[in-house]
Amino acid sequence: MKTLIIEDAGKVSFTEKQKPTASKGQVLIKIKAVALNHRDQYIREGKYPGINYGTTLGADACGQVIELGEEVDNKWLNKEVVINPNIEWGDNPRVQSKNYHILGTPTDGVFAEFVAIDENKIAEKPKHMSHEEAAALPLAGMTAFRALFHHGQLETSQKVLISGVGGGVAQFAFQFALASTSEVYVTSGNAEKRAKCIELGAKGAFNYKEEDWTKQAKEQAGGFDLVIDSAGGSGLNDFIKLMKPAGRIVFYGATTGKPKDLDLFRMFWNQITLQGSTMASDQEFHQMIEFVNTHKIKPIIDSTVAFDEIISQFDKMKEGKQFGKLVAKF
Amino acid sequence: MKTLIIEDAGKVSFTEKQKPTASKGQVLIKIKAVALNHRDQYIREGKYPGINYGTTLGADACGQVIELGEEVDNKWLNKEVVINPNIEWGDNPRVQSKNYHILGTPTDGVFAEFVAIDENKIAEKPKHMSHEEAAALPLAGMTAFRALFHHGQLETSQKVLISGVGGGVAQFAFQFALASTSEVYVTSGNAEKRAKCIELGAKGAFNYKEEDWTKQAKEQAGGFDLVIDSAGGSGLNDFIKLMKPAGRIVFYGATTGKPKDLDLFRMFWNQITLQGSTMASDQEFHQMIEFVNTHKIKPIIDSTVAFDEIISQFDKMKEGKQFGKLVAKF
Repeated sequence: MKTLIIEDAGKVSFTEKQKPTASKGQVLIKIKAVALNHRDQYIREGKYPGINYGTTLGADACGQVIELGEEVDNKWLNKEVVINPNIEWGDNPRVQSKNYHILGTPTDGVFAEFVAIDENKIAEKPKHMSHEEAAALPLAGMTAFRALFHHGQLETSQKVLISGVGGGVAQFAFQFALASTSEVYVTSGNAEKRAKCIELGAKGAFNYKEEDWTKQAKEQAGGFDLVIDSAGGSGLNDFIKLMKPAGRIVFYGATTGKPKDLDLFRMFWNQITLQGSTMASDQEFHQMIEFVNTHKIKPIIDSTVAFDEIISQFDKMKEGKQFGKLVAKF
Repeated sequence: MKTLIIEDAGKVSFTEKQKPTASKGQVLIKIKAVALNHRDQYIREGKYPGINYGTTLGADACGQVIELGEEVDNKWLNKEVVINPNIEWGDNPRVQSKNYHILGTPTDGVFAEFVAIDENKIAEKPKHMSHEEAAALPLAGMTAFRALFHHGQLETSQKVLISGVGGGVAQFAFQFALASTSEVYVTSGNAEKRAKCIELGAKGAFNYKEEDWTKQAKEQAGGFDLVIDSAGGSGLNDFIKLMKPAGRIVFYGATTGKPKDLDLFRMFWNQITLQGSTMASDQEFHQMIEFVNTHKIKPIIDSTVAFDEIISQFDKMKEGKQFGKLVAKF
């Protein structure tokens, strides 16, 4: 079968591998569509811990169950499903285990025609989604879900700011927040993305490249109960200034690096939380699927190409011009 | 009556003020003992927000109710009590209101022969404590209680590190932690204080001035579920390195300033919390009193002087050589 592997730092390539079979407790899935995450591009660039060259890439996929291993519930046969990319989260809902990793490195991922996977790692494809939309959901949807609800403790009527809303996780955080409260604000350096978010229901959209954006945000929103961020860096101080007392800043990345200083004084007096977050537990995978079903949320797709053209989606991700997930289908 | 006021930045002095009376809902307390907090010395130095010169200093006191205002429960008459120094915490258990402040600036405090205060701001003096011990309890005890339990969510069998254990809050955090789990560790730059903590039940005591203290801590403790800190600064990275996954760092001060960088990468991957904390709610004042009664905890007193000599305790605090609270009695 055809797979996309990380051949060497800087190089991904198509390779034929043997079609897997469903072992005991597993299902065999014929993949219909897959989606990219930033980590796929980071792995391509050799900038990810624990890369095992030769590994099939990819964390996110939607497909159809075509074969059942021993002891697997018959209900799965022919079902369309999405895959939970977690491997060994472990028993603790508060944090992943030491052996935790994500499909696609160092364990073979889903950028392949067929994938064999444990029965407990799949969920039915939401019926309101296409294969492409369902493929776009798991990793970014889980990360957003945990950041907003487990760590962020988002409540109805709270004011939430989603920073850098171009990214995949940020977009899910934006959509999930919109389904939970009417007071959702975003930041983006891109005018089109800001306009798009207003169109979709954001109450305000700020350009973090403008020096006085925090002033604008203060005037328009008053203050935030929750910020969801993945930029980190000294921009965290902007959020600290904008938080309501007892506000929470949840971050799942630090693309601008470490902060040069951090206003601890305002943080302790206002009892602010700075909370690191990553991915989500297996339980949250299922909760997130239920949430998108309840609220009929559809992932935002930037573009879909044929699987044979998937490398062009890596290039697009590197440029960072997309609004929505980058998908490839069989 | 005799009071100690902040006369000007750098100068505290004794001044006669009129003896107060108990208004409706208030009790009049004859003060038996008072205790110092760092904020008293900061106010003396003019380094505290909102100083109102002429204000009677002091947040912590123990005394006897000698007069009741209208509508006050008769049970209080002649009772020995401790005072909750909160003013206008407000209704939200998660954070204080905008008008929140602490007795002793800008509202007249307790370094006086008599204090009139609302009935709901007192609690019975714990019977196992002397007047001096009870006076030492409120502000630092409340701050430690909230940091450990509300924000820190300390559980039995967790490993907790109390940094800079010479300070008043840190000592209560140490004692409260000892009553809650057997795995309490401390840091101090002072060998005597470290030895004292080991004697009192600490499982380990580290000298944060030694370059490899984190290595020693890692070897001895493995990792911490909770750190209680008031130093802040770049030392926060030491804690981030030492935290178990999902660990919490709760800080109630930042005496070494803002961190020059902060390892956000380790923080998000390990889902670490950095949590600001300050003082405690009125409800926590009563919970803390109940806690010290249950566990028969006695505040550690460094020394007691006559109220007339209280300025010498300010000087001692400035030097920072004390182990335990600095008290003055009538």
